[in-house]
Amino acid sequence: MIHTDDGRQRAMIERVWPEIDAGLYPIKRTVGETVRVEADIFGDGHDQISSVLLYRHVSSDSWDEILMQPLGNDRWVGEFPVTEMGRYQYTLKAWVDHFKSWQRDLRKRVDADQDIRVDLVIGTDLVERSIQVATGDVASKLKSSADLIRNGDDLAVQEALSPDLGHLMERFGERPFPTLYDRELEVMVDRERARFSAWYEMFPRSCSADPDRHGTFKDCEARLPYIAEMGFNIVYLPPIHPIGQAFRKGKNNSVTAEPDDLGSPWGIGSAEGGHKAIHPQLGTLEDFRSLVAAAQGHGMEIALDIAFQCSPDHPYVQEHPEWFRARPDGTIQYAENPPKKYQDIYPINFESDNWQGLWEELKSVIQYWIDQGVKVFRVDNPHTKSFRFWAWCIDSLKQDHPDLIFLSEAFTRPKVMKVLAKLGFTQSYTYFTWRNHKWDLMEYFTELTQTEMREYYRPNPWPNTPDILHEFLQTGGRSAFILRFILATTLGASYGIYGPAFELCVHEPVRQGSEEYLNSEKYQRRVWDLNAPHSLSHLIAQINRIRRENPALQSDWSLMFHPTDTAQILCYSKQTPDHRNRILVVVSLDPTWTQAGWVDVQMDPLGLDGSRPYQLQDLLDGTLYTWQGGWNFVKLNPAQSPAHIFKVEQ
Amino acid sequence: MIHTDDGRQRAMIERVWPEIDAGLYPIKRTVGETVRVEADIFGDGHDQISSVLLYRHVSSDSWDEILMQPLGNDRWVGEFPVTEMGRYQYTLKAWVDHFKSWQRDLRKRVDADQDIRVDLVIGTDLVERSIQVATGDVASKLKSSADLIRNGDDLAVQEALSPDLGHLMERFGERPFPTLYDRELEVMVDRERARFSAWYEMFPRSCSADPDRHGTFKDCEARLPYIAEMGFNIVYLPPIHPIGQAFRKGKNNSVTAEPDDLGSPWGIGSAEGGHKAIHPQLGTLEDFRSLVAAAQGHGMEIALDIAFQCSPDHPYVQEHPEWFRARPDGTIQYAENPPKKYQDIYPINFESDNWQGLWEELKSVIQYWIDQGVKVFRVDNPHTKSFRFWAWCIDSLKQDHPDLIFLSEAFTRPKVMKVLAKLGFTQSYTYFTWRNHKWDLMEYFTELTQTEMREYYRPNPWPNTPDILHEFLQTGGRSAFILRFILATTLGASYGIYGPAFELCVHEPVRQGSEEYLNSEKYQRRVWDLNAPHSLSHLIAQINRIRRENPALQSDWSLMFHPTDTAQILCYSKQTPDHRNRILVVVSLDPTWTQAGWVDVQMDPLGLDGSRPYQLQDLLDGTLYTWQGGWNFVKLNPAQSPAHIFKVEQ
Repeated sequence: MIHTDDGRQRAMIERVWPEIDAGLYPIKRTVGETVRVEADIFGDGHDQISSVLLYRHVSSDSWDEILMQPLGNDRWVGEFPVTEMGRYQYTLKAWVDHFKSWQRDLRKRVDADQDIRVDLVIGTDLVERSIQVATGDVASKLKSSADLIRNGDDLAVQEALSPDLGHLMERFGERPFPTLYDRELEVMVDRERARFSAWYEMFPRSCSADPDRHGTFKDCEARLPYIAEMGFNIVYLPPIHPIGQAFRKGKNNSVTAEPDDLGSPWGIGSAEGGHKAIHPQLGTLEDFRSLVAAAQGHGMEIALDIAFQCSPDHPYVQEHPEWFRARPDGTIQYAENPPKKYQDIYPINFESDNWQGLWEELKSVIQYWIDQGVKVFRVDNPHTKSFRFWAWCIDSLKQDHPDLIFLSEAFTRPKVMKVLAKLGFTQSYTYFTWRNHKWDLMEYFTELTQTEMREYYRPNPWPNTPDILHEFLQTGGRSAFILRFILATTLGASYGIYGPAFELCVHEPVRQGSEEYLNSEKYQRRVWDLNAPHSLSHLIAQINRIRRENPALQSDWSLMFHPTDTAQILCYSKQTPDHRNRILVVVSLDPTWTQAGWVDVQMDPLGLDGSRPYQLQDLLDGTLYTWQGGWNFVKLNPAQSPAHIFKVEQ
Repeated sequence: MIHTDDGRQRAMIERVWPEIDAGLYPIKRTVGETVRVEADIFGDGHDQISSVLLYRHVSSDSWDEILMQPLGNDRWVGEFPVTEMGRYQYTLKAWVDHFKSWQRDLRKRVDADQDIRVDLVIGTDLVERSIQVATGDVASKLKSSADLIRNGDDLAVQEALSPDLGHLMERFGERPFPTLYDRELEVMVDRERARFSAWYEMFPRSCSADPDRHGTFKDCEARLPYIAEMGFNIVYLPPIHPIGQAFRKGKNNSVTAEPDDLGSPWGIGSAEGGHKAIHPQLGTLEDFRSLVAAAQGHGMEIALDIAFQCSPDHPYVQEHPEWFRARPDGTIQYAENPPKKYQDIYPINFESDNWQGLWEELKSVIQYWIDQGVKVFRVDNPHTKSFRFWAWCIDSLKQDHPDLIFLSEAFTRPKVMKVLAKLGFTQSYTYFTWRNHKWDLMEYFTELTQTEMREYYRPNPWPNTPDILHEFLQTGGRSAFILRFILATTLGASYGIYGPAFELCVHEPVRQGSEEYLNSEKYQRRVWDLNAPHSLSHLIAQINRIRRENPALQSDWSLMFHPTDTAQILCYSKQTPDHRNRILVVVSLDPTWTQAGWVDVQMDPLGLDGSRPYQLQDLLDGTLYTWQGGWNFVKLNPAQSPAHIFKVEQ
């Protein structure tokens, strides 16, 4: 029931937005963005209501306030900026505003030529009472207003009804019996890269210049200029830890490994160490720190993989058997999806009696790599670990390091993916890889960017990963890679690719019907010819440059789809709130044949004057077009380019 | 943030429905109904989840439980009955179900012919651990299951996979580290009349058989058989208290009263008493109690008007000046809507320093009439009094008297009307009177009955009130009254009329463009010819009988509109959940001309087999029709009947 502690509180505050799950989870923003807050606010009777939006960084003891503005139908709005990383809080306060009611009524009385002498005394009193709250200039301004109104002449009425006095009283007038909203809601404010980032995943062991030698961190360092030139800003490495021997998988996921097989980097832990150790063939901790520093020198940062699971050889298995599930025969339960067995992996048992010790240890793993300079983590299958662990772990790490970025690698059911984002993950993988039709791309990205999801879920679409080579890429040729790359990079302010497999258009699956790569780097080293003529590296560099130069592409919130008359052509736009930067993308979803059709540009939402022509420059080839009105003809030959990325001006 | 007190809780419970404003307000039901609860429930990883819906009457110390069933996409459902008046609570519990997971995996292992010896030991252990929780027969059944499974032969597998054992373990198996939903949600359970009622409003002073004499409670008593015959079950009387003299309004709301003018019953309070007193001309407290008892004898009950405002002569004005707003000139602030003044009314100041004393006194007014046998109250303009007062007052009165019914007479902005319903009013007036077109009737009643509003807002549509004689009734003739009555009685499980003005089709406004009655009973006595040949009393009796005989019409939740091909014909149905009682209503919205057109009966939702004909009996004239398929032709001549009320059978 609503509280009745102070029964004189007459204002009601309801349906506050944004508010995720009754305030259980914070919304997300990046530094420099704003939070627009709406609420239903009203009181009993006919009195006027005033309301303020209160907000503060959690490090601050005092609230700042913004006056809420009515939108009609008892809906109000206010907006505050977030300028620092970390958590902000916001809530609302509302009260019956006697001065505002008095001004409104006085105006009607004056218009009806009524006797207002007593009303002017009431107004004088309201102003005088607020003088005690105000100070300095404001107090003297209010005092002179009170004096004028007390006089009761024509000037008194003019002063009483003046908007200036109204504004002053809104700020400094009495706020009797204010209603405070039940909850303090939160905003997690991240750095810009949480919203706008380009990820490049690569296997360090394949970075060797010498095909016969295991790649090292030094080799990775040598690879950095190549990646930086393509315009990425996050280089993500699969696990860099010692790989277990027991039940090690061979090439192409064979259950029996040859003696020289390297095993999967996700089979973490051996006699050489666990999650805080480095695989000896990759180099030393010193080498790793050098790599981190070198990446920084290129304006990039290294992201590590957090995969909380253990090979049977992991030190934890001996040191903390209580963190695993024991079987009655004395063995430890390996991972399985019956009838499939993954005997090279022991999952962690989050129902362990020693769960607190477990949590602390797992958190210390991430802390260890933070101490080596890592700020970005891609978390492997977070949905197979306890949700409450992640909530606690991410929250407590971000208290000291608000610049941390955690990417959730969950490909699972919608509500599970959502809760991981809600409880703290900065960015999230998506179903993008499996969205290859016009209708499902539109439906999915509309849900991601135009529903409440956008408040907490930052999508990071990947056209490929080491686990997912979609049939579309297997069969669509180089154009398929290009069009999927353009979709990922322009639909997603953040995105990632798994390279060099991506830019080299690697498309052979391990077998027909599988999404696994043939000779997958998960189980072996690969040697890549980065200079292959069919490489997409130049196109990638160009598109990353377009993304950097066009702020419209650096956020997902403005995404809007425009009608087209064919299922093979997708059209959408992104723009800055002031319309100063507008990008219109037209993509053919057909990697093979030329597609032509009509697109219906929604001019109004783009801030375009429907009666005048507008100019489109294709940022991919520089061509200029002039269009008039909504419907316009496009023709896309995938052999040339499967897409236009237009900059629109009028 | 989600709590991490016990980090081993792996289940999540989200998006529980119904839940109004994060559980701040209860949902509403009547005795005998059920509460269907849905929630998103899921855990991490691949384990199976189980969940129970917990519920109890607040008078009970212990929870009953219902096993939740999965609906797909991590949505679950459960349903519990409410059998007593008063508040119920409900919440949810969910946990990772190791036995269910084990059964699922065992089935796959068996199918794949794997070695399951260790798995059977694990299962035996799971069953044995639950034996300690279970008792009696269940314990011995579980024991014999454990023994069978331990044996490890074919019978063991059969027993391990048996659905019976699964069900038993769902109830009695271990529930490790259960997650309890954050909130205990509430249901306010009222008696049936809160959902299904027919109100008749009349002015006691006009009940006199002798036109020259002021009506009395005795006259009201004599009027009861007439009202009972029409089938009403609530007789609502405007305020019965002494009427103030100061600034008393004359006939037709004239600002100067003649000496013999009776004043408005809402101008409450005089030297003869206030809200706990009876207007002397109506009779004594004894007479009133007799009226209450006589109504009961007719299966009806008397409803009183709660109008918390005072005439300047009200005893409160002298006794508790602090409950009113003082003006600087020493006068008390009268009601006004500048430039209009209502000097006969002093509003109560809910910002009074003595608000607690005020609340107690106002509550004691209602308690006083409860003590005289009144259980139903129509509250006048509740939106001009403090919301928190109503929440507290209704809640504390209903704790002792769960059978109380409060009807909110608020005709104001949507969110204000809604919050009054949420915070405790049993029924609410609606915008029905101003909804005269097909589209807005459909839109409005769909909102009332098919959105979250139905969980807390029980609409009570009135075709007229003493304040509202809509232009449609002023100009539409007798057919207009009939069609509005049929709409109110079949769209609303509860409804009311202001009589005898309604059944006598009184339609003269005080002036053109006004919704006020000419010679309104609000300001004078009227003499009514109840036997006038144009009276609708027989039709009203017939329709109230149809409502009683057809349970479909006794709830609003099943309301569904069916397409028609003309804006002049509205078609809708109500039905019981089992389809055993189905009512299809076809109403012409044109009171003057014959209207014909096609209606498209949605057969599926009505449980009708589209391939077979179905029978419709018009309950108004007994005619039988046989229709086939959705589209059927109707023709309505308002001179005969502007509507069909069909009972549909197949």
